[in-house]
Amino acid sequence: MTSEFDLIQRYFTRQAKSVVLGIGDDCALVRPPGGMGMAITTDMLCEGTHFFADVDPQSLGHKTLAVNLSDIAAMGADPRWATLAVALPRIDEAWLAEFTTGFFALAERFGVELIGGDTTKGPLTLSLTMFGTYPLGHALRRDGAGVGDDLWVSGETGGAALAVAHRHGRVHLPAPALAYCNRRLDWPEPRVELGRALRDIATSAIDVSDGLVADARHLCERSKVDARINMDLLPVPTALQASGIDRAIVCQAILAGGDDYELAFTAPAAARSDVLVVASRIGLVLTRIGSMVAGSGSVHVSDMQGLPIHLAAGGFDHFR
Amino acid sequence: MTSEFDLIQRYFTRQAKSVVLGIGDDCALVRPPGGMGMAITTDMLCEGTHFFADVDPQSLGHKTLAVNLSDIAAMGADPRWATLAVALPRIDEAWLAEFTTGFFALAERFGVELIGGDTTKGPLTLSLTMFGTYPLGHALRRDGAGVGDDLWVSGETGGAALAVAHRHGRVHLPAPALAYCNRRLDWPEPRVELGRALRDIATSAIDVSDGLVADARHLCERSKVDARINMDLLPVPTALQASGIDRAIVCQAILAGGDDYELAFTAPAAARSDVLVVASRIGLVLTRIGSMVAGSGSVHVSDMQGLPIHLAAGGFDHFR
Repeated sequence: MTSEFDLIQRYFTRQAKSVVLGIGDDCALVRPPGGMGMAITTDMLCEGTHFFADVDPQSLGHKTLAVNLSDIAAMGADPRWATLAVALPRIDEAWLAEFTTGFFALAERFGVELIGGDTTKGPLTLSLTMFGTYPLGHALRRDGAGVGDDLWVSGETGGAALAVAHRHGRVHLPAPALAYCNRRLDWPEPRVELGRALRDIATSAIDVSDGLVADARHLCERSKVDARINMDLLPVPTALQASGIDRAIVCQAILAGGDDYELAFTAPAAARSDVLVVASRIGLVLTRIGSMVAGSGSVHVSDMQGLPIHLAAGGFDHFR
Repeated sequence: MTSEFDLIQRYFTRQAKSVVLGIGDDCALVRPPGGMGMAITTDMLCEGTHFFADVDPQSLGHKTLAVNLSDIAAMGADPRWATLAVALPRIDEAWLAEFTTGFFALAERFGVELIGGDTTKGPLTLSLTMFGTYPLGHALRRDGAGVGDDLWVSGETGGAALAVAHRHGRVHLPAPALAYCNRRLDWPEPRVELGRALRDIATSAIDVSDGLVADARHLCERSKVDARINMDLLPVPTALQASGIDRAIVCQAILAGGDDYELAFTAPAAARSDVLVVASRIGLVLTRIGSMVAGSGSVHVSDMQGLPIHLAAGGFDHFR
């Protein structure tokens, strides 16, 4: 019968070149390059909470890595190594082959080496810990936003939340919008290149996983400032623009939907052209959506006329 | 209602002194001391596989940390930091208070700082990643055992497996033996001090989590040697000696039972007195149970007369 050790050997072992010692001992051994700090993040994905039982295993492998890469990106760090703990209800080699295909395709794109892990029996659960390196003193933290800074967001938000709402039957998306939203939910693109490029431009950054307003609030709380967001400046995905979906639902998804894995960041007004140069160089839309004002950690959303917009919920919380 | 963020703040946040940035950002930031490598390990514990639904949450908090400390110990590294991902079916604050009491009591004993994590809804699952530091070139790896080395084991093995067998109704342990075995299963003591002390004495080491013979085999495979174990040299726990339990069952547990978290290690015959000095200094029995011979990764167990002993199973495998 296939054992835990066979599974690790067959599906999870790749040659790790930049480590002292990879999979196969009690610990992996790494030697961070001189003058570098390490950025460390952990995310756990559970069936029923983060993905549906019938999820495409390739996209799940991609997403397990992508959500952690997104945290590394939000610190402006370079992704390096990962450990992966997997609980599986039973051995399903076809499933594992697909999962690891999605996982390693993304890992190779960003030079991430899987250096250790654990495989066990249990309800389908993926827990990944990722390590990045950054030049000491140059990480993009949440607590650096200052009054007068611009607030920016990368790409588009809202699509992933609408895909979830569609699958739960709470909205009905026409085919083109559904294809767009499914892609946003199942194949998120971590903004690693952007994080790296913003290292010496942005004053703070966070990845948008709980919802744009909720994550902007995390950033405001840590920076001890308020944010003013102009709803009418937010990018509305093309696929959702003439889709016939209620505009209020789209706005709600853009502001409060989770699982987007874009970056929200602040930068001084003097750095606007630097930000736009980055956008152009990496081929990613970066949108100025508001600014930071004196305050103690709140986010205010209004439309072009300055009328306040209230959200139905503050963001995504696993226990709500 | 209590949110994920409240839970993290209330139960999982302690002041982390030795890090650049602890809980509350996208990543934790650490700066390994100069000249040090990092040892990294991950273990996942699932309800039903690694513990029973009615487990004492304090002991579970202890054990979640202990099994990872054991891997750090087996590398001869100094434990430093940990990240913890927790899936919970529902918020149970009394349970969390107990769990974190057990967790932090052990963390403080060994100077481990919790620097990040994830809290989510799902079947009860704990996934911990731990980081240790070690002087470059001085880690205790599995692949350093040489022909002629002695094979040693710390403490006693077998108790934890007998506690599991009792709970499953496969053996009946009298009260004093049961108390001993339960303690071995629920409150394992990671051999951190031993690992550190063996750094420049042992040629290889592994922690005994899958069973003594199975783990000795992992060590042999990586070192490309065989091991000869003399069954009659193995320490039999006092509580099991006159307990009336079938001797064959006790031997099987000592050789093949999992979840012991002792260290098995090899050292040159010339270092015997050094090993015994360590044993005396840290107050832990260290027993020479065999020796390494030319071979390609097998373990041979025999009794004092040299008669071979065969095991019912090769060790612990989550999918067997």
